[in-house]
Amino acid sequence: MGPGTPPTAAELGIMVGSPPGRVVDLAAWDKGPDNRWAFQHIGEIVPTAVVSRGGDMPRAMAVGDEDLSPVVADDGGSAVSLEKVLRRTYTDGFIVLHRGEIVCERYFNGMGPNTHHLLMSVSKSVVGALIGVFVDDGRIRPESPVVQYLPEMANSPGYADATVRHVLDMTAAIEFSEEYDEPDSEVVAHERAMGWRGGSSVAERGLYAFAQTIGRVDRPHGDLFHYASINTDVLGWIVERVAGRRFVDVMSDLVWSRLGAEHDALLSVDHRGSAVVNGGFCMTLRDLARFGQMMLDGGRANETQIVPPEWIDDIRSGGDNAPWRPTAYAEVWPDGCYRDQWYATGDDHGSFFAIGVNGQHLWIDPTTRVVIVKFSSQPQSVDEGMAALSLRALEAVARSFRLSEVDASR
Amino acid sequence: MGPGTPPTAAELGIMVGSPPGRVVDLAAWDKGPDNRWAFQHIGEIVPTAVVSRGGDMPRAMAVGDEDLSPVVADDGGSAVSLEKVLRRTYTDGFIVLHRGEIVCERYFNGMGPNTHHLLMSVSKSVVGALIGVFVDDGRIRPESPVVQYLPEMANSPGYADATVRHVLDMTAAIEFSEEYDEPDSEVVAHERAMGWRGGSSVAERGLYAFAQTIGRVDRPHGDLFHYASINTDVLGWIVERVAGRRFVDVMSDLVWSRLGAEHDALLSVDHRGSAVVNGGFCMTLRDLARFGQMMLDGGRANETQIVPPEWIDDIRSGGDNAPWRPTAYAEVWPDGCYRDQWYATGDDHGSFFAIGVNGQHLWIDPTTRVVIVKFSSQPQSVDEGMAALSLRALEAVARSFRLSEVDASR
Repeated sequence: MGPGTPPTAAELGIMVGSPPGRVVDLAAWDKGPDNRWAFQHIGEIVPTAVVSRGGDMPRAMAVGDEDLSPVVADDGGSAVSLEKVLRRTYTDGFIVLHRGEIVCERYFNGMGPNTHHLLMSVSKSVVGALIGVFVDDGRIRPESPVVQYLPEMANSPGYADATVRHVLDMTAAIEFSEEYDEPDSEVVAHERAMGWRGGSSVAERGLYAFAQTIGRVDRPHGDLFHYASINTDVLGWIVERVAGRRFVDVMSDLVWSRLGAEHDALLSVDHRGSAVVNGGFCMTLRDLARFGQMMLDGGRANETQIVPPEWIDDIRSGGDNAPWRPTAYAEVWPDGCYRDQWYATGDDHGSFFAIGVNGQHLWIDPTTRVVIVKFSSQPQSVDEGMAALSLRALEAVARSFRLSEVDASR
Repeated sequence: MGPGTPPTAAELGIMVGSPPGRVVDLAAWDKGPDNRWAFQHIGEIVPTAVVSRGGDMPRAMAVGDEDLSPVVADDGGSAVSLEKVLRRTYTDGFIVLHRGEIVCERYFNGMGPNTHHLLMSVSKSVVGALIGVFVDDGRIRPESPVVQYLPEMANSPGYADATVRHVLDMTAAIEFSEEYDEPDSEVVAHERAMGWRGGSSVAERGLYAFAQTIGRVDRPHGDLFHYASINTDVLGWIVERVAGRRFVDVMSDLVWSRLGAEHDALLSVDHRGSAVVNGGFCMTLRDLARFGQMMLDGGRANETQIVPPEWIDDIRSGGDNAPWRPTAYAEVWPDGCYRDQWYATGDDHGSFFAIGVNGQHLWIDPTTRVVIVKFSSQPQSVDEGMAALSLRALEAVARSFRLSEVDASR
């Protein structure tokens, strides 16, 4: 363990021994250092449902070879190697696909190729992709009011007059603070409703009851990008309602069983069995990379059209920059937007990505044909320095691949 | 739904709706009717760990064809068809392999080929097979005292002077009543320690602490077959101690990742992360059949020797009939025994089997080369009528296959 390398869960003695002397604290499992262990063992912490991989053979991924050691990221003016970025930012797993081939695959902190890891809000983008299937077949219309699908939401000040589009693009003018460290913030109550904080009356009523209590702020829906995790759970609820089935089963049938995944995914469920889709997916590194590759390939994988190509286009270039413009995100990606639960950078590569707290990343560069997944267990939910450094490193990796004629002609 | 066919979870409205109107009662999830749903969704009820299938391709199983409709079982003198037995005994899944080919595969009550189902005490026999790997490499000696591996057990009146052999064969003279319906029985306290009954101080301390409280009865160890679930958890603890790793990881490395399984297995863990090996495995029907086939094939599967053949021989014919003779089991199988966490019938086919409460069965007939798995969600933990009828049906199915010259020469 060199300087700048955080200790592993095993080095910290977390869940070591039989029985373990030091167990994970349920009140703080998702913060450091307990999350060094917990993010790889979510089913032992909170209730989880299985998102089945189905019965098909896993789709093999070719393994290529690429030396990424020359890649450096800009750390406030000084260059830092990819290796150092990975270590400094509490990486658990890191994989790079180039044209569908694994060109780099690294594991840290006890993780391995068959370990499930929590996606946190990268989950939101998985849900956003699934929504496209329902938009394509007409069962969900983004322009429709939320209450058309969920009449219960007429009781919700925040959502009573919102459309699905507002929810998808996180421009609903709801009263919801995403401040994880403020005990009175809505996101902390949200976590209780998800069942991520142990028992409480909020937990007993569950996620969908909580969604009906969300307040409204005084501006029109649609005007401002306002990131609020509860929006994604509203989408999950709509999916269950229009499909007439549990979210996990829909997700397995329409996406996960068609992807050629090696492993079942897991999905956190609340105390009433409703899926915690805003952040509760657990997948192996390679399986999330398979998902990312499908998104890069216009929604196709395993010789199957999984997500409609029009929906992928909508994610990549259908968004509106205006609600994004007043936010801090615009300082990094002035032409970006948040669309269908994805971040579209608006950069010259057309890169789009998913991101989750504590250092979860899925980065897709359609120009160099690169997909990158990074799983981490950073101590804080939001560490802006680590997030910025990680994003610069992912971008540098993606841009380190030269464009072939094939790529350039696409 | 015909007469004699129990209603499905969906027909009962259990976990139907978004959010569901009727959720599973945590105090009684393993009894009818909630177990109709719960046995297929264990990760949503209790904490579970992943037993990874590894990264290899699943081993395909050929599908043959066999008409089992002429098979009848003896139901107290009258003949009853296999179909009726399956329906009457709350079957969720039923599969028959003959010479490794699937010749019958049936699902009921919402189960499908990719659904995990709780094994209950069939889990014990899975553990018994794993122990053979450690006996073979010398890390576990059946003749050694338990305290050699678990010095903590010097505090346990029940186990302080028992050997691993007593634990393996369930002849330890411990004070442990397996009466599920008696609130003061040890098995009910055991379930609390497993985390299967919600929070309690027993649950907080966990399974291994509970194992140290087990009392002694006044007879020599080894004299009587006395079925007690806690014995298997003692074996799980020994495995963790000698391997220096968590049980789930050992199980994955030595067995599950080598079997060609289609799916990760799940395993219930207690509040301190210790594996509930006496009853907490969840597997798909086909994957448990793959495991059974490996046991039939002398411990080999997927071109790999997984369990040593000597250990399979020990299970099948190494046991002692004397401790079994005074029990009710001897009325059915007079020459039988309980060996290494398996039931050996001592019948003319050399059949051996695993069984779990609420109707879980793994039946292996080495003479006709048949493996049968039956998953069920019977209302009561122990229904002697259903258990007897099921066993007669499994035996009738296994004996319905004629011996080929190949089989006869084995």
